[in-house]
Amino acid sequence: MDNFVFQNRTKIIFGKDTENRVGQETIKYSNKVLMVYGGGSIKKTGLYDRVMKSLKDAGVEVIELPGVQPNPRLSLVHEGIDICRKNNIKFILAVGGGSAIDTAKTIGVGVPYDGDVWDFFTGKAEPKETLPVGTVLTIPAAGSEASNSAVITNEDGWHKLGLTSDIMYPEFSILNPELTFTLPDYQTACGAADIIAHLLERYFTKTKNVELTDRLIEATLKTVISNIPKAIANPADYNARAEIMWASTIAHNNLLNTGRIGDWGSHNIEHEISAIYDIAHGAGLAIVFPAWMKYVYKEDVSRFAQFAKRVWNVDDNFFDMEEMALKGISALENFFSSIGLPVRLKQAGIDDTRLEEMADKCTQSDTVTVGQFKKLNKQDVINIYKLAL
Amino acid sequence: MDNFVFQNRTKIIFGKDTENRVGQETIKYSNKVLMVYGGGSIKKTGLYDRVMKSLKDAGVEVIELPGVQPNPRLSLVHEGIDICRKNNIKFILAVGGGSAIDTAKTIGVGVPYDGDVWDFFTGKAEPKETLPVGTVLTIPAAGSEASNSAVITNEDGWHKLGLTSDIMYPEFSILNPELTFTLPDYQTACGAADIIAHLLERYFTKTKNVELTDRLIEATLKTVISNIPKAIANPADYNARAEIMWASTIAHNNLLNTGRIGDWGSHNIEHEISAIYDIAHGAGLAIVFPAWMKYVYKEDVSRFAQFAKRVWNVDDNFFDMEEMALKGISALENFFSSIGLPVRLKQAGIDDTRLEEMADKCTQSDTVTVGQFKKLNKQDVINIYKLAL
Repeated sequence: MDNFVFQNRTKIIFGKDTENRVGQETIKYSNKVLMVYGGGSIKKTGLYDRVMKSLKDAGVEVIELPGVQPNPRLSLVHEGIDICRKNNIKFILAVGGGSAIDTAKTIGVGVPYDGDVWDFFTGKAEPKETLPVGTVLTIPAAGSEASNSAVITNEDGWHKLGLTSDIMYPEFSILNPELTFTLPDYQTACGAADIIAHLLERYFTKTKNVELTDRLIEATLKTVISNIPKAIANPADYNARAEIMWASTIAHNNLLNTGRIGDWGSHNIEHEISAIYDIAHGAGLAIVFPAWMKYVYKEDVSRFAQFAKRVWNVDDNFFDMEEMALKGISALENFFSSIGLPVRLKQAGIDDTRLEEMADKCTQSDTVTVGQFKKLNKQDVINIYKLAL
Repeated sequence: MDNFVFQNRTKIIFGKDTENRVGQETIKYSNKVLMVYGGGSIKKTGLYDRVMKSLKDAGVEVIELPGVQPNPRLSLVHEGIDICRKNNIKFILAVGGGSAIDTAKTIGVGVPYDGDVWDFFTGKAEPKETLPVGTVLTIPAAGSEASNSAVITNEDGWHKLGLTSDIMYPEFSILNPELTFTLPDYQTACGAADIIAHLLERYFTKTKNVELTDRLIEATLKTVISNIPKAIANPADYNARAEIMWASTIAHNNLLNTGRIGDWGSHNIEHEISAIYDIAHGAGLAIVFPAWMKYVYKEDVSRFAQFAKRVWNVDDNFFDMEEMALKGISALENFFSSIGLPVRLKQAGIDDTRLEEMADKCTQSDTVTVGQFKKLNKQDVINIYKLAL
């Protein structure tokens, strides 16, 4: 186990009707907020009205920034920063999924910074302060509601990059599983792939002696795997939705990577797909992760055998752990297929014409390697894209 | 799953040599601190010198309060409160195990309070503010390093009571597994019983649909069970010590009881034993928990069967889950025995002469019930003590 520092201050308010507490939580920070959200879905479900009422009842003035899209855009972040500065706004509330939250977090670090907020993503500068951010979560997937990171797409070149800083943990996040009842099945499935990917990025490590976090990750994986089919079969199954929602937060709140180095290669490889083709991040991960696994499992067959046994109940085969490893990978791929996700690029309508371009962006013209479990160069990334065709 | 609020702000600094960071962490809060510790062990191991050097190098003035005993006493808390007030101390540092930390936390809430700090334990008053507290942990057991509670023994009547308040989370806790290499085997084993008990108190719940936290608890239990024998066989096994130390914190930082109601009956029943007989809390728990389980398992045989299967690898028996349940209880009892703990009162030199007195104190003359999984009255508590004879 490696040395580590862990601190996650986000207050989680979990359960039925909890969105009605957003006003009383928000007023602790400011009586004027920027509310960031997507399109019409929160209006259609009535969530918008309930949030606005709670804020109004608490005496909070709201300035709105709608229009967040999946794979959220830098241009909207710039717009939000301008609004906050012009209106002297001191708190940002995201209502939605990871895209709304990442937009809010990025506006938060952008407001007090003199330069372009994109500098933080390219590594030109580090964020030193932020406006506080709160969230009302509607999609269990990204884990951004209790994480210290955000992912933004710069339309100028369609670069999709992540930013991590401990000042970016939200102050509070409100998680009501009922708000996820209206998610379309495909979005529930994409969320599952994102949650599972966050767990697997942490699981596949070269760090030795990480038994506790291994077991905690396996526990969370098993819970997601057992509850996603229930939520798809019965979208209003509160119990299944609650397990998934809490798992999505725990998968990405940085507890499960304490003392170990994660991989994150599959995320980088996927980001180039969704940046160019604008497919759902979760769908991209369902395509990339099994391919990545097939490409790298020989780096540590024992770890893949453990994954197969403990997560998928694959029979022990002490004479051929490679067989176990491959069965585990197949089990994951079959699971993604069973919940309606693509597991090949062609199922998402993507052919081989831009593989090299994506691999080039992913490895910055082959000047960096991607991932930690196996450090991948440009040709490795191309090979993985090809395995995923 | 029940609604819940979860926020744990404690900063964990984990790993080799981390005690040398105590000065730089402490100076963020104050340049004058009360340092609370026990007896000579931290001086013998050199920890005292390293901590003092780190504090001095950071410019922190130290006033010392040594003399913390196991089952820490109210009188020392009073002494600490006086010292803090007279010297205008604004930060308390505990160096030691749960007893030192609980003493520090209780001094922390006592200093700004006009009345007797014992009022908080008897429910006469609620703590509203506290001096900030930091810790350097030397015994993985109580979990107090990242919990919101403390347990103190009032020598006047030997009442041992707990206090819980969200203001009581430490600001930071430094966890270096190397500091636990010198623990005697018996203390390692007592710590294990305490960690396991914290997990079991959360596990045995009547709350339905708690799959994720069930699995997380099982994961933590399995890790402790597999690593304690290694630490006893080889006290300087860093990997085993690290797994145990991080597990001890996670077992009690309130993540694992999110959305579920724990029991805590065994803790209450045990507190009366260690308050009167002054045995180690962990040893008392190793005696009480199996007896409690035998007394209550029929409340939910399925949950006990799940415990037997998932934690102890007991074979499925779908025709007789009660058999599985009993095998799981035996497995726990055998485990405690195997690491050198008493599992009967007589093994700790305790006979049946004061059972009624202890049950009386535990249930406040039969005016309250104890526990949640099965609500126990005075006669139930006597029956459990008898099962433990």
